[in-house]
Amino acid sequence: MAGKLAGKRVLVTQADDYMGPATLALFDTEGAELIADTSDLTEPGACEALVASAGHVDIFIANLASPNYSGIPAPELADADWHNAFNMMVHPLHKLCQGLIPQMMERRAGKVVVYGSAVALKGLKTVTAYSAARAAQVGYVQSLGVEVAPHNVQVNLIAQNYVENPVYYPPELREKESFQNSLRRQVPLGRLATAEEDAKFALFLASDDSNFFVGQAIPFTGGWVQR
Amino acid sequence: MAGKLAGKRVLVTQADDYMGPATLALFDTEGAELIADTSDLTEPGACEALVASAGHVDIFIANLASPNYSGIPAPELADADWHNAFNMMVHPLHKLCQGLIPQMMERRAGKVVVYGSAVALKGLKTVTAYSAARAAQVGYVQSLGVEVAPHNVQVNLIAQNYVENPVYYPPELREKESFQNSLRRQVPLGRLATAEEDAKFALFLASDDSNFFVGQAIPFTGGWVQR
Amino acid sequence: MAGKLAGKRVLVTQADDYMGPATLALFDTEGAELIADTSDLTEPGACEALVASAGHVDIFIANLASPNYSGIPAPELADADWHNAFNMMVHPLHKLCQGLIPQMMERRAGKVVVYGSAVALKGLKTVTAYSAARAAQVGYVQSLGVEVAPHNVQVNLIAQNYVENPVYYPPELREKESFQNSLRRQVPLGRLATAEEDAKFALFLASDDSNFFVGQAIPFTGGWVQR
Amino acid sequence: MAGKLAGKRVLVTQADDYMGPATLALFDTEGAELIADTSDLTEPGACEALVASAGHVDIFIANLASPNYSGIPAPELADADWHNAFNMMVHPLHKLCQGLIPQMMERRAGKVVVYGSAVALKGLKTVTAYSAARAAQVGYVQSLGVEVAPHNVQVNLIAQNYVENPVYYPPELREKESFQNSLRRQVPLGRLATAEEDAKFALFLASDDSNFFVGQAIPFTGGWVQR
Repeated sequence: MAGKLAGKRVLVTQADDYMGPATLALFDTEGAELIADTSDLTEPGACEALVASAGHVDIFIANLASPNYSGIPAPELADADWHNAFNMMVHPLHKLCQGLIPQMMERRAGKVVVYGSAVALKGLKTVTAYSAARAAQVGYVQSLGVEVAPHNVQVNLIAQNYVENPVYYPPELREKESFQNSLRRQVPLGRLATAEEDAKFALFLASDDSNFFVGQAIPFTGGWVQR
Repeated sequence: MAGKLAGKRVLVTQADDYMGPATLALFDTEGAELIADTSDLTEPGACEALVASAGHVDIFIANLASPNYSGIPAPELADADWHNAFNMMVHPLHKLCQGLIPQMMERRAGKVVVYGSAVALKGLKTVTAYSAARAAQVGYVQSLGVEVAPHNVQVNLIAQNYVENPVYYPPELREKESFQNSLRRQVPLGRLATAEEDAKFALFLASDDSNFFVGQAIPFTGGWVQR
Repeated sequence: MAGKLAGKRVLVTQADDYMGPATLALFDTEGAELIADTSDLTEPGACEALVASAGHVDIFIANLASPNYSGIPAPELADADWHNAFNMMVHPLHKLCQGLIPQMMERRAGKVVVYGSAVALKGLKTVTAYSAARAAQVGYVQSLGVEVAPHNVQVNLIAQNYVENPVYYPPELREKESFQNSLRRQVPLGRLATAEEDAKFALFLASDDSNFFVGQAIPFTGGWVQR
Repeated sequence: MAGKLAGKRVLVTQADDYMGPATLALFDTEGAELIADTSDLTEPGACEALVASAGHVDIFIANLASPNYSGIPAPELADADWHNAFNMMVHPLHKLCQGLIPQMMERRAGKVVVYGSAVALKGLKTVTAYSAARAAQVGYVQSLGVEVAPHNVQVNLIAQNYVENPVYYPPELREKESFQNSLRRQVPLGRLATAEEDAKFALFLASDDSNFFVGQAIPFTGGWVQR
């Protein structure tokens, strides 16, 4: 059975959330052997346990999302929410990379693709916790990316926004005319991306076609952010 | 015959230079109908004539390169060389887009992919003319990209460096130990990209898999530039 | 007489346009000896003549602005307008730097400050000529900046937008409610900068307080662009 | 006694570390009333206590630095070091802003200036913890900056590198020839900035001359990073 990911073992976290389902569906058609994790990675020892149980991983799809706490001004943000953004999106990214990178370096082949956010690149009001945590992911990817590149392991991040998903764009929001007008005003392309389009970009970054990309945060926003 | 570009008419300029040959080779295997232009686009009327003779164009691969005049300090740069950078890389990009965009807008489908340079994003000494002209391409793509996005036409640029090609990296340079050391120091990945890897990225941007990218300049540099 | 620019000879181009008047006013209070040029720098030989007549120049304020041809889609842009953007903003920047940099390098002291535009950093529709030319300025500054930095000459650019000036924001536009609403929506600060505020930033970049800034394009936009 | 900060109450954290001493020295000559804090802000309640004891604060200089743990590959990084970077640099930034921003908004005047790092903008190997935490600061500043701008409170960050300070550049390192060669190769300007030059930039961002800067991370690196 052919496919761009034939014979590749791919770990996807939060597999039933956010970009998980679309990634699993597409990567399956491309022949990947999928490890679809749904454990709570904020629990002590959870990341280490996942690394141990996953075994051989060629490609790690870091699908890590917290609530975005959008609309809460910084002075009113609860401490628990602030820390939750880091606990769900930043610390597990590091712990899982820490566990998985050594085997990739040893084989001189491996990919990490992070589903991140373009709010790391462009400031929006009343999303400070989420923006800071998403930016931490970018800084991490930039640094880890150049660190492991000489070992032929590539780490990159999709800095996305305006991608269909039930967490940030619930159907009731998408139907509002005010949302659709805002979409036309904010997004030059004038529409949301489908989750499948996003997964296709992840596929490109996960495949051997993208070996020359190193520690990059690439916008995927329909023109909302360009760099 | 299947292929990601089956049935697509693709115009490639400077088809025998720079990224031309690798693009033609890859796009051919993907089923494209290729229009391989080798005319001198700095001649008056040359761009208009090419647009007229090309007819239906689904995808325009703007492969436009001048000498980079590297190593010449700004105060010593000849006027002819300064203007040549703009005459070869900037003005034809606009004239060809001007001619080709309307048919793409009318069909509500089309792609422009520019083989640009990462020196537009990061300053290097003694390449002022080339840097300014390459940056002009980025500014053009950013603006045109958002302008035509609502018509479902996508314009993007590959901000590349350290890609194998006989113009900027002649074999005699590549064999020098000083060049190889500089490569390891400058490029986290520690090697040049092959022209084929670069063409694969152009293929991604030229295909329908990349409809959500709008007016972007995406680094392709092995980590030399990340954003 | 004290002042941050006491004893400094400062050349300001297009001295009666755009940021010229505010720059002259502020720099005068800081003790500068001002050379206020109003010649047409698109004329053959005009830049060379200005360099010759200016003599000793410590600080070159590149105040170069063309009409922005805003609102004209790329396919409808007249060739003369396209070229005018480069003829007014890009080519004179190079010719004047080419003439003035050598004396600065010889004295191991000098500053070039370019009043540029943030449209070089973020794409707007229907301003392709202006965006491309303004981006060329950024690419030029980035490259020239690193080239001359070892000689203690600093070249930097103000990537501005939403600054009061009669060329781009005529009083009749500023009074429109639709303009004021757009301002509140686009600019986080919710207002235009005064020309004096902009001149103060130019003063900072022109003074010895900014010797560590090298080849940068720094946004000055009230939050419209952050990087 | 005049001065750019006459009558302004300025809070400086980690006042005896990193950029603290140079900031205090310069701001004192400009007439500021200084609140020089040296408490351990990682202790529970320390930030809240500082906000309470500081009282009226016009300008908050967020001078927050942890060890950079440079040279430790990601797989070998101790958990305590990873978290320490966030505990010292990211969480106190938020807690202090959370406490101080409301009084600034109420007065419709206030400044936050963060001494950050350019490693947030450009990846370096074996500094993942530090890079991620410094990038989180950038994301936070970008978001908070646009949030509070309409209230005339400006939040900006100095993305610095290659600034003299005994923590990152101890005298014994600076004397090494290998360090000096690396400096000439990496930094176009060819030298470190003095701490005083850096403080002068902080002064500019803290003064009313910079009211139009919103949520920006501005490189201060001698050309190592330009954007």
